[in-house]
Amino acid sequence: MAAAGTPDDDHKGARELAERVINGDWRALARAITKMENDSADAPTLAALLYPKTGHGHIIGVTGPPGSGKSTLVDGLTSVIRADGRSVGIIAVDPSSPFTGGAVLGDRVRMQRHAGDSGVFIRSMAARHNAGGLAPATRDVIRALDAFGRDVILVETVGVGQVELDIMKVADTVLVVTVPGLGDGVQTIKAGLLEIADCFVVNQSDRPGAAQTVADLRTMLTLGGAEERRRRWMPPIIQTVATSGKGLEELWAACQRHRLVLESDERMGRTRDRLRQEVLDAVARGIAADVNSRLAEDGEVETMINSVVRREIDPRTAAHKIVANHFRRERIRLPPVP
Amino acid sequence: MAAAGTPDDDHKGARELAERVINGDWRALARAITKMENDSADAPTLAALLYPKTGHGHIIGVTGPPGSGKSTLVDGLTSVIRADGRSVGIIAVDPSSPFTGGAVLGDRVRMQRHAGDSGVFIRSMAARHNAGGLAPATRDVIRALDAFGRDVILVETVGVGQVELDIMKVADTVLVVTVPGLGDGVQTIKAGLLEIADCFVVNQSDRPGAAQTVADLRTMLTLGGAEERRRRWMPPIIQTVATSGKGLEELWAACQRHRLVLESDERMGRTRDRLRQEVLDAVARGIAADVNSRLAEDGEVETMINSVVRREIDPRTAAHKIVANHFRRERIRLPPVP
Repeated sequence: MAAAGTPDDDHKGARELAERVINGDWRALARAITKMENDSADAPTLAALLYPKTGHGHIIGVTGPPGSGKSTLVDGLTSVIRADGRSVGIIAVDPSSPFTGGAVLGDRVRMQRHAGDSGVFIRSMAARHNAGGLAPATRDVIRALDAFGRDVILVETVGVGQVELDIMKVADTVLVVTVPGLGDGVQTIKAGLLEIADCFVVNQSDRPGAAQTVADLRTMLTLGGAEERRRRWMPPIIQTVATSGKGLEELWAACQRHRLVLESDERMGRTRDRLRQEVLDAVARGIAADVNSRLAEDGEVETMINSVVRREIDPRTAAHKIVANHFRRERIRLPPVP
Repeated sequence: MAAAGTPDDDHKGARELAERVINGDWRALARAITKMENDSADAPTLAALLYPKTGHGHIIGVTGPPGSGKSTLVDGLTSVIRADGRSVGIIAVDPSSPFTGGAVLGDRVRMQRHAGDSGVFIRSMAARHNAGGLAPATRDVIRALDAFGRDVILVETVGVGQVELDIMKVADTVLVVTVPGLGDGVQTIKAGLLEIADCFVVNQSDRPGAAQTVADLRTMLTLGGAEERRRRWMPPIIQTVATSGKGLEELWAACQRHRLVLESDERMGRTRDRLRQEVLDAVARGIAADVNSRLAEDGEVETMINSVVRREIDPRTAAHKIVANHFRRERIRLPPVP
């Protein structure tokens, strides 16, 4: 919550930059993203100023195990979307990367492919995870592309861990990519991805075992719970060969169908749940920062920790006592609802 | 912090079970671990009762990319440690597994290998991650094995994500395993593991490229910062062939040397830092739970979220206002240090 500015602050630089982003200035967008990634002082102001202009872009998340060809798929899908006349923003998020910003190798390869096409904006970023979920920068960058006016924002993650799952929660449409014969391909998907997938992509489907992978996925979909949610939208399983472009038009059509379904019923609910969680997470972070700075100055806490080190009291009971002593006792009453 | 019991509670069952664990009752240990994994009501009491008997076991964490042969290494190392007359507890943690408890395939294979040796206790568990770090169950289970009297506790993780890093922070000695020719082997290690490794293991070192992998690791160690910490202990790089047992005695010797160094100077500091963090994390979780339940009943928060949904105010500013209105305004004063 550090320096959470409001549009009323005199951050004139941020205001100017935000206006340029909203007017489609490419260099301003790049600068704004860098500020967000570096957590610079006016990043929150910038995000606040861009936020009212968001909501237009179709955010498509692309995840799946390493080696499933996600990058090639994103590139191919981009060409199809461009041919359909929509502008594209691509964000490749690597939670394990120690590098922030700048172009990594994959970026340069892509830049060449879509070079000269101002309809494609590409950016790699390292997503740090913090207690309480996804680092705010990732969300801010996606929103910056939305405010910039991109019709479609493709968010690609490198792996399939908790961070990637959290990133996918930001997307309107989630594509889960796998390939035939990837040892624990379907097994990997089981862990959390099944619940969030809006569309399965069996990439490199010209390889042996493609039919089996499709059959496995279909079985999983049938067995998996969440039937309620599936009544309106059953995730299709689409076979692609990203390198040749096969299946990519069908995939784009599925993405568009999914968005129409979202628009017609659940999108508002989903958006609301997501935003509520985001606000509550930020509240929890703000309070935790507050609490930590207070506890850091509290001698009684150190005395308690000494007891834990001497194995006289266990950590959980110690925490329980600290909470009971310092917080619950003087329970804050919320003001009445107006 | 739900139902955080203290030894004063009348949880007689937990008290009996804890005594049996401390007295080395194998079946009691298995039952206690199941309770911890399932987050049953008396698990916190059980953990509190076992905690004073911990601190004896040497906790060795084993991590590294999939395919580096960690399981085979743990098996071989176990044989060496057993031959040295020490008892062993093995916990295989799979953060991505949806299964809790019970024996997975790897477990059964191992069970056979060390079958009939009461000096080896093996358990697989799924480690769920929550906001604020490692799920408490993992720590509790490691401590249960410690209180049970195991001389060495080997904690093996499946992957190399954030969860695995957090698990490794619980270990006294961290082994980072890699293999020659694993695509991004050294690259993977760069992401966070370099800082926490106490010993590097180049497994399957009879494969081509072993010397190169060792050289790469050495370069990384030389380039990496943290020189201060390395003055007392420079992580050795040990080549093993886990399947044949080559290098495993050397590895065990390195683990023991590392523990001696820990004992002599930094162990208390490390332990203290770790326990402080554990207590503060639990405090943060307790407060967050408290805050969430209060906010859930607060109509003003819903009004604020409505504004966010209508894009009138951004999520960060909304959170800032909630914190400012409801918490900072009535800032709790801590009682003076006694």
